Amino acid sequence: MSAPEFNTPADAEDAFYRAFEQADLEALMATWADADDIVCIHPGSDRLVGPADVRESWRRIFGGGAKLTFRRTEGIVLDRPDVRVHSVMEEISVAGAARMTARVCVTNVFVRTAAGWRMWMHHGSNPGGDLASESVDTPAPTLH
Amino acid sequence: MSAPEFNTPADAEDAFYRAFEQADLEALMATWADADDIVCIHPGSDRLVGPADVRESWRRIFGGGAKLTFRRTEGIVLDRPDVRVHSVMEEISVAGAARMTARVCVTNVFVRTAAGWRMWMHHGSNPGGDLASESVDTPAPTLH
Repeated sequence: MSAPEFNTPADAEDAFYRAFEQADLEALMATWADADDIVCIHPGSDRLVGPADVRESWRRIFGGGAKLTFRRTEGIVLDRPDVRVHSVMEEISVAGAARMTARVCVTNVFVRTAAGWRMWMHHGSNPGGDLASESVDTPAPTLH
Repeated sequence: MSAPEFNTPADAEDAFYRAFEQADLEALMATWADADDIVCIHPGSDRLVGPADVRESWRRIFGGGAKLTFRRTEGIVLDRPDVRVHSVMEEISVAGAARMTARVCVTNVFVRTAAGWRMWMHHGSNPGGDLASESVDTPAPTLH
């Protein structure tokens, strides 16, 4: 079976969600780039990098047996010539609270504008749920 | 005061985290593109779109008074000519569990490859914490 070819990002995205709904691991993996640095961050989970770890995560999800239906809403498309995506882990330390350190998975997207490079998106998520669930003695302030 | 000009995405990112550590709202907002569709998703929070909502969120965070220090690790840079970023909200319904619907903030990044457009990143996060906190009668399976 040859891999499908997607003419647009929207075609690839449609195929991704169709495979997700059908719990079709091969079809889902065929929507990803053949690259060692692909990145997948499931909600409330840590970052996964590379085809092996990404595939294994979907195998487990599909193994759960839940039949899901997706509705995608409020889409925003960034379609510019100069776009850079950074995937980073933030380790955040809070002054005066030695034990309070949070780890956040972050996607930062930058665009080249007439006034130089600027941030277009900052998307952060907690690998283990909310900061409020961190082991701290005092109620967690809003850090981020 | 004229806005700073960042020659690289890394310069803009450095300035963003410097402003974050210094709780300097003006300096932080100066790292963002001047565009109505900028996107900011704080960990465990819903998506914010546009300068007014993004600015207000940072004003509140800085108003909390926490002094934070960031260490960025495990950086991955996507630097290709053809990159498309989609920000979407997923509304996920589970078959057989009428009341169980999850809302997930998603960033999907696509790249143009020799074999057409493919997914490079899928980053999902829960606006209100983990799916486990959803109001359901049965333990939540791993949906995603």
